[in-house]
Amino acid sequence: MANKYVIGLDYGSDSARAVIVNALTGEEIATSVKYYPRWKAGKYCNPSKNQYRQHPLDYIEVLEATVKESLAKCPAGTAENVVGIAFDTTGSTPVFTDKAGVPLSLHPEFAENPNAMFVLWKDHTAINEAAEINELCAKWDIDYSAYEGGIYSSEWFWAKALHVLREDEAVRNAAYSIVEHCEWMPAILTGVSKSSDIVRSRCACGHKAMWSEVWGGLPSEEFLVALDPVLAGLRERLFTDTYTADKVVGNLTEEWASRLGLTTNVVVAGGAFDCHMGAVGAGVTPKTIVRVIGTSTCDIMVSSYEEMGDKLVNGICGQVDGSVIPGYVGLEAGQSAFGDIYAWFKRVLEFPIRQIIGTTSLLDEATKEKLVEEACDKIIPALTKEAELIPLSESTLIATDWMNGRRTPDANQMLKGTITGLTLGSSAPRIFRALVEATAFGSKAIVDRFIENDIEINQVIAIGGISLKSPFVMQTLSNVLGMPIKVAKSEQACALGASMFAAVAAGVHTKVEDAQKAMGKGFASEYYPDEEAHKIYLSLYEKYTKLGGFTEKELL
Amino acid sequence: MANKYVIGLDYGSDSARAVIVNALTGEEIATSVKYYPRWKAGKYCNPSKNQYRQHPLDYIEVLEATVKESLAKCPAGTAENVVGIAFDTTGSTPVFTDKAGVPLSLHPEFAENPNAMFVLWKDHTAINEAAEINELCAKWDIDYSAYEGGIYSSEWFWAKALHVLREDEAVRNAAYSIVEHCEWMPAILTGVSKSSDIVRSRCACGHKAMWSEVWGGLPSEEFLVALDPVLAGLRERLFTDTYTADKVVGNLTEEWASRLGLTTNVVVAGGAFDCHMGAVGAGVTPKTIVRVIGTSTCDIMVSSYEEMGDKLVNGICGQVDGSVIPGYVGLEAGQSAFGDIYAWFKRVLEFPIRQIIGTTSLLDEATKEKLVEEACDKIIPALTKEAELIPLSESTLIATDWMNGRRTPDANQMLKGTITGLTLGSSAPRIFRALVEATAFGSKAIVDRFIENDIEINQVIAIGGISLKSPFVMQTLSNVLGMPIKVAKSEQACALGASMFAAVAAGVHTKVEDAQKAMGKGFASEYYPDEEAHKIYLSLYEKYTKLGGFTEKELL
Repeated sequence: MANKYVIGLDYGSDSARAVIVNALTGEEIATSVKYYPRWKAGKYCNPSKNQYRQHPLDYIEVLEATVKESLAKCPAGTAENVVGIAFDTTGSTPVFTDKAGVPLSLHPEFAENPNAMFVLWKDHTAINEAAEINELCAKWDIDYSAYEGGIYSSEWFWAKALHVLREDEAVRNAAYSIVEHCEWMPAILTGVSKSSDIVRSRCACGHKAMWSEVWGGLPSEEFLVALDPVLAGLRERLFTDTYTADKVVGNLTEEWASRLGLTTNVVVAGGAFDCHMGAVGAGVTPKTIVRVIGTSTCDIMVSSYEEMGDKLVNGICGQVDGSVIPGYVGLEAGQSAFGDIYAWFKRVLEFPIRQIIGTTSLLDEATKEKLVEEACDKIIPALTKEAELIPLSESTLIATDWMNGRRTPDANQMLKGTITGLTLGSSAPRIFRALVEATAFGSKAIVDRFIENDIEINQVIAIGGISLKSPFVMQTLSNVLGMPIKVAKSEQACALGASMFAAVAAGVHTKVEDAQKAMGKGFASEYYPDEEAHKIYLSLYEKYTKLGGFTEKELL
Repeated sequence: MANKYVIGLDYGSDSARAVIVNALTGEEIATSVKYYPRWKAGKYCNPSKNQYRQHPLDYIEVLEATVKESLAKCPAGTAENVVGIAFDTTGSTPVFTDKAGVPLSLHPEFAENPNAMFVLWKDHTAINEAAEINELCAKWDIDYSAYEGGIYSSEWFWAKALHVLREDEAVRNAAYSIVEHCEWMPAILTGVSKSSDIVRSRCACGHKAMWSEVWGGLPSEEFLVALDPVLAGLRERLFTDTYTADKVVGNLTEEWASRLGLTTNVVVAGGAFDCHMGAVGAGVTPKTIVRVIGTSTCDIMVSSYEEMGDKLVNGICGQVDGSVIPGYVGLEAGQSAFGDIYAWFKRVLEFPIRQIIGTTSLLDEATKEKLVEEACDKIIPALTKEAELIPLSESTLIATDWMNGRRTPDANQMLKGTITGLTLGSSAPRIFRALVEATAFGSKAIVDRFIENDIEINQVIAIGGISLKSPFVMQTLSNVLGMPIKVAKSEQACALGASMFAAVAAGVHTKVEDAQKAMGKGFASEYYPDEEAHKIYLSLYEKYTKLGGFTEKELL
């Protein structure tokens, strides 16, 4: 029997990665990563306004580049035996399209208009719209936010759609439909030419667009018009049904088969969000929480229908049947900032290096540049080394992890971060340690929320950059949670998860759990909690939960 | 008429300064500064326990060195025309003595025992004792803390005395009396040989030892024994009367005249605390608050008997008849940290410079050392430059100034500092700016407390390092207070104030106000509040007042 290969395509915030995987064994044959060129140049974004947009051409160009580069690294004959492709992307990352399903920014007149581009997950321009949605949900006879944790976020589909429609008359007049990034990638590869033919992602729609079978799909036309008449008529041009990511969307078109160097036998699976597929790739099962730990976190669980019953878990990012593994309710939570908090503190400490060392007349330009680069790179390792030496009894600084707002539990994007307990002896490593503890406390708040709702957790699996790079952070997290943490071996769990969906869609495995068993990679390491430390952290966590912190409105 | 000269001796935390002043005009003829040698070597201190002790030999050695060095800089004939000397020192900085009034650490068996040395003002080892004193005051029929703001501090006389007696049996057995630093200096120069002959300072005893004419001197024996039987019998070996600093203590002994190169005609005035004499030197009058702004602040006012009536101002460091200018009630307040907070943040930012640049293999040792030194020196100027550019509308970080506890209003040494409103965009200059604003908010809390108690303030005078060095800090302070601030011209206001007391004691002027008029130096600059900024700061100050912050007990 010839080997069968699948391609997992993982679209992150800054880059996309293609991984070619043996569909039977999970062996990673070749991989390729490319940064989005326009995004990398800082185009279409305005960080001071939290506006983050991505151009569809960025997505298309890296698709071709990564697939071709990874195929080129494979033994001869691999391309012919590729049987499936699946995509995971960030989300909610929607774009307005024309009637044909083409993102408006692919038309020349919108080519430079950020409102005609994908609105990246972390874009917070729709804070006011999210607040209005929450207000309306609270008084409507159906709470359409119920399966999304009961608090709608500015990072999500309807808030972003409404914000763009209000702000941009040209887009408003040209917009016919909206599509999520993870839905658009399969659509273009399979030659969809009508927006109504786009296969909609259960994961994206259920977690971000208030889609639920309970109320027959999207929120009612009345609700949307009550929100703003500008939304009138949009609902009926969108969709009623959504699909889990193991379902076949179609085959590669001839054009795309040729562009990618593949055959038209390749089956394209449904899309889903990166963390959801990452959780599958890392081995999520019932009673396991998979934490994707990077700049922020995404926390994924699956729960059986029996365990869930008609339970509603408040304050998380949602519970959606089939959003992770078909046949289970997928649960999503997450922290708005995790590694980003360490990176922020690093930037604070870089100030004298860049401003003073970087401009000194004592050194020549080349030495200066090298020194500044070396120094900045070593900040986090140096902080970590010192922070590890501080006895836990001296952890008397308490910080919150809300420097980028709070995603869960109980979303509040207006919350700000706090550090308290400061003394004249609070050194940089002590502050760093408090920030690491804060991110762990934020994690505990999420885990506790699940447990309070009788969602049992007996395993924590971590994936993502920080889980492999920082034993100090992972040990602190284990000590705070009082739970062992397994770190997934695959450094490309999201792409591996996507390849599992591709393998199921292509018929290599009959269901996602089978693909997990056959293709899973196991664990690189495991952290065990120090029970003494856990006890101390329980009391510090009490203080963390009592810390308020001003919101933006209160501060301005 | 021959010129008459006086010597003002100003004993700060780290060094002492002698200034030789023309007693008629206030002209500063010569000056000399010397660091305390043992203190500079870090002896007898334990910063992690907040234990700060100073050896009496440090005081004696710098006395000789500064007086002789400053005299050597004067024209011939100056020494013969010196008519008075006065001392200001830190306080409460008491030491246990034998029956002769000799500090125990001047005896060989106690020469290396920190408990037999002066307990420097900022020593916080007596936190528990202060709490016990407050508890007892609250239930005693007389509130002995009433004239000390109603909250007794661990930085003060009785707390420190009790702490040392409890902790050190050898000192307990040898201790006969206690003397404040500002009382001991005049005593040794005038040859006091019995502890009961030491002239007691109205300023030190009234503000720190719960001495008041209202209850006939020190707290009753019953009160002290109720506090701890270890205090039994001490009171009657101490004192009943106290004296303002314009009074003559005596003449220089022959021995000291010879050691200092002066004559026995020199009159030694009473001692007082540095900030009190500094306020006099800077021109304090009724309705003026003089702020000594350095690592911490000391805020001094004088109020007429008419204005004060039988008013008690709660939560300040005390109100004592004659503690600043005889004939007026002296009022003292202050912030536990001011410049120390900027220095703390500087130390945080120094971390990568010292740890990474300081150990890089890219540079040779000499360049490295020079670079590290240059970089550390430039941190505050670089922060200031950037912080000044941030529009006030972007001051959305709020910090408290309690990194060293809170001295006033409402002393609470266990309070810790807080920074809130943090986002991923909170840069080092933005944090620095919030810290500058926090120190200004702490200042406003003190000013407001006086005004709430109908102590009118129509002039703010600033002295001390920061007032001359940082226009940014001073302008922010003016904007927050909504008041103009005059910066005293003399860089040696405390020593100048002491010289005014020396001139009055020597009979050159009949009262302190006359000496102020004749010898005062006026102002170097004046800051005026920006009314628009003041309005914005009023609303930020509201938020500052709402910030709590955990105390040490709550955090441990």
